[in-house]
Amino acid sequence: MKIELAKSYGFCFGVKRAIKIAENSKDGATFGELIHNSEEIKRLEDNFNVKTLSTIEEMKDEDKIIIRTHGITKKDLQVLKDNGKNIIDATCPFVTKPQNIVEEMSKNGYDIVIFGDKNHPEVKGVMSYAQGNVHVVLDSTELDGIKLCSKIAVVSQTTKKIEDFIKIVAYLMTRTKEVRVFNTICNATLENQEAARELAIKADIMVVVGGKNSSNTKQLFLICKNFCDDSYLIENESEIQKEWFNGKEFCGISAGASTPDWIIQKVVNKIKEFE
Amino acid sequence: MKIELAKSYGFCFGVKRAIKIAENSKDGATFGELIHNSEEIKRLEDNFNVKTLSTIEEMKDEDKIIIRTHGITKKDLQVLKDNGKNIIDATCPFVTKPQNIVEEMSKNGYDIVIFGDKNHPEVKGVMSYAQGNVHVVLDSTELDGIKLCSKIAVVSQTTKKIEDFIKIVAYLMTRTKEVRVFNTICNATLENQEAARELAIKADIMVVVGGKNSSNTKQLFLICKNFCDDSYLIENESEIQKEWFNGKEFCGISAGASTPDWIIQKVVNKIKEFE
Repeated sequence: MKIELAKSYGFCFGVKRAIKIAENSKDGATFGELIHNSEEIKRLEDNFNVKTLSTIEEMKDEDKIIIRTHGITKKDLQVLKDNGKNIIDATCPFVTKPQNIVEEMSKNGYDIVIFGDKNHPEVKGVMSYAQGNVHVVLDSTELDGIKLCSKIAVVSQTTKKIEDFIKIVAYLMTRTKEVRVFNTICNATLENQEAARELAIKADIMVVVGGKNSSNTKQLFLICKNFCDDSYLIENESEIQKEWFNGKEFCGISAGASTPDWIIQKVVNKIKEFE
Repeated sequence: MKIELAKSYGFCFGVKRAIKIAENSKDGATFGELIHNSEEIKRLEDNFNVKTLSTIEEMKDEDKIIIRTHGITKKDLQVLKDNGKNIIDATCPFVTKPQNIVEEMSKNGYDIVIFGDKNHPEVKGVMSYAQGNVHVVLDSTELDGIKLCSKIAVVSQTTKKIEDFIKIVAYLMTRTKEVRVFNTICNATLENQEAARELAIKADIMVVVGGKNSSNTKQLFLICKNFCDDSYLIENESEIQKEWFNGKEFCGISAGASTPDWIIQKVVNKIKEFE
């Protein structure tokens, strides 16, 4: 039986990069949770002695501080620098980008609109780079009645949907003369879905690895099911049943965005036993 | 009976301005039709000896050249300048704006997208200010398969609908990193409609003056009819019937975008006879 992993699956580029950085920063401490995945954070602590701290106060005795994937505020970064910390930046480059855009655009006299959730650490970081007016909204109605400058620069939280971002931009186009749109949405989720679909069309069995409560994993599973009747959603290798593979010739594998590679590898190893 | 003109009606700001400029430029010649209204062009020729010429060749013996409302190409303007003509610019400021934007943006390395009709003189003028790539489209599908730069500046022909402009921008947002949107749509048509609606709500008879084949005039009439049962569409004062005004107390008047003021004035004078 042929076994093939989807072209894109599991952790996104930014998360994989951050994990590699953390593994190379033994005995360091991360500023906030490095990524949104507690199993992986535990593994980094167990195997590499990388602690997770949440306040600057707690970091005072640390030397190496690893900045989490979704970034921190400009002010917090400055405090770390002022305290002479060795700063290791694991901010996802797709998050650094809107931070830089917001900083440059507000320097150039643009009001800033961020499409995102103002309580999300990524958005808190991005908005901290604005020097002038900044509006964080999830819906254009939140801008009703607000006096807007004639030049607006717009960015999006990386994980938002383009359809909703377009609605914000459409609204701004009717309200002001210049709208400078930076599409800072990251397509990792879409790429995983597209790759799963592509593989499911060819495979006669699909195994999707991920949390049963994870909305992106469930969506991946539904896409696979749509193209391959024999699709299974599992959390780890212990759920695999041998009879699923009877008479099968091509097994495709995908995984949700919060599934670590080592869990996927265990699944692959188990399926290989049936070859 | 009270007679009231809508707050906004008839010729737009740019057309009124161009007529005033032409009236002040006796014995001049316009480069192309000054405005899209043959009756008015005839009046300017009869009363102010302002000719309409269409080629630079024809203009060689002219001294005063009046640039039409929708502008000319950068190259034609240069030829006129090189020939030492006295150039009187009646280009609508709402058209000069996208010309300037396109020139500046393409100097700054942006590819240009113009939402508009590439055969329209306004669009021909605007696109002539681009130094690099420029794409003129009426629909986003025309951009399929075209290699786009990572920085796009977008303007619209002044008379287009915002809903369609938004569709072009939405498409570009999915194709490139930065989309710099300049909303260069002029709201004159919408303003006439809004003002007609406002007046029709208060009036007990509405008279709309304009061509029976003019789509914007018919739309104005329908809006009035919706709010005032006794609404009438006429081309000129000869169609007015006295009995329309029996028992009426408040007559509202609006006019289509190609109706000259002097025709509207004759209508007002006639209605005043019934007061």
